Amino acid sequence: MNGKITGVSLGPGEPELITVKALKTLQAADVIFCPATLRGKEERESKAARILEALGINTAKIRFFLVPMSTDRTAVNKVYDEICKEMAECAGAGQKVSLTAEGDACFYSSAHYIFEKLQRLGISVKMIAGVPAFIAAGASVGLHIVKQRERMLVIPGDVSAEELESALNRGYTVVIMKVPLGEEIVRSYMAHHPEEHYFYFEQVGTAAEYITSVYAEILKHPFTYFSILVIQAAKRHKNITK
Amino acid sequence: MNGKITGVSLGPGEPELITVKALKTLQAADVIFCPATLRGKEERESKAARILEALGINTAKIRFFLVPMSTDRTAVNKVYDEICKEMAECAGAGQKVSLTAEGDACFYSSAHYIFEKLQRLGISVKMIAGVPAFIAAGASVGLHIVKQRERMLVIPGDVSAEELESALNRGYTVVIMKVPLGEEIVRSYMAHHPEEHYFYFEQVGTAAEYITSVYAEILKHPFTYFSILVIQAAKRHKNITK
Repeated sequence: MNGKITGVSLGPGEPELITVKALKTLQAADVIFCPATLRGKEERESKAARILEALGINTAKIRFFLVPMSTDRTAVNKVYDEICKEMAECAGAGQKVSLTAEGDACFYSSAHYIFEKLQRLGISVKMIAGVPAFIAAGASVGLHIVKQRERMLVIPGDVSAEELESALNRGYTVVIMKVPLGEEIVRSYMAHHPEEHYFYFEQVGTAAEYITSVYAEILKHPFTYFSILVIQAAKRHKNITK
Repeated sequence: MNGKITGVSLGPGEPELITVKALKTLQAADVIFCPATLRGKEERESKAARILEALGINTAKIRFFLVPMSTDRTAVNKVYDEICKEMAECAGAGQKVSLTAEGDACFYSSAHYIFEKLQRLGISVKMIAGVPAFIAAGASVGLHIVKQRERMLVIPGDVSAEELESALNRGYTVVIMKVPLGEEIVRSYMAHHPEEHYFYFEQVGTAAEYITSVYAEILKHPFTYFSILVIQAAKRHKNITK
């Protein structure tokens, strides 16, 4: 087969937390598709591209696609359709094509929209795994997120009070991503449960990193979008029935 | 400070799925502590050491410690106490010390026993994140384990029927590690729920890799110890309440 398309996980943001396999794939790629957003009217912002630059990847190989920041899926879908067509053309011409994704491409990554479209076009995509953000957050402070027989529940943003109560009551460790989306419920739970262990992470591995496990500090801190809150139930060693 | 101790995550087993940061740390290390087990009476087996060899790390730097395969913690604790003493001595002498862990060192890794002992000795340990096995399993077949607002529950081994029912009833994606430990309950759930999506993984990224998402094949397959079963609830897009 001529060419091929590879989904390359970039890891959590700190450039060297990319895998050796992913780095080699990017170095060997002919063209690398990178998502970007518009900050203001003109300024293009791409976290993926900044990681590639830091890793010394030839930026001339990068092809940006602008992902509209909108809840209306029509505009986003149009962009993805165009990108899939372009990627298929490059692969068809025998080029090695990479599509980058932050964190792991198969773990809460919007890259799945593109991969699903490619699959519907009959084009197979190879994936290279990466370090998810919550794993890097834990490692950054030596926090053993889960060990032995502990359970972990990951909730992206829109937490419900009932499921949070239920999970922590079972002794689960809960990882909440995009904390502001469930802000009211999280703050209310924290206020009623000072006994649990809370670990708040923001921009881990960057200059803007903010990490705290001090209850009072988390409570007064304004949550930012790509934040992670790990809650370890005080009773996590009990209530796990055989 | 003279010397330092770093917990280095090796990733899921495929050597190049280690991070660039971890590889550089191992290359710069003066001494690398690697867990090993005895296979039979004489033959030493160390998955960690095999990864290091494949990555071209100087194996003369490796110091093995034999982890007794026993449910009695006394013998294991004794080994860990000795290792901590040795590591502290090396670090105190100004050496760069690495301790390796498969997968991610903070995610269901027995390395936490050693790190906790070191902390009690007043020695701080830096951690380098790695790709957990379940992430690599998903990527190996392009399976998007969770996306958008889906929830994921990770259960290590000793599944209870009630929590499995409860999680899948909520529409959660469930990741079961060390499937044989909960074999009876898992098989019973599968028999009663052919509608869910099952993905079984064994030795991903090695020559002995076995992966299937065929319901009937999983049901007749003898589960092995380090296997992973991902169950995506058929109703995973419903029942997630705001």
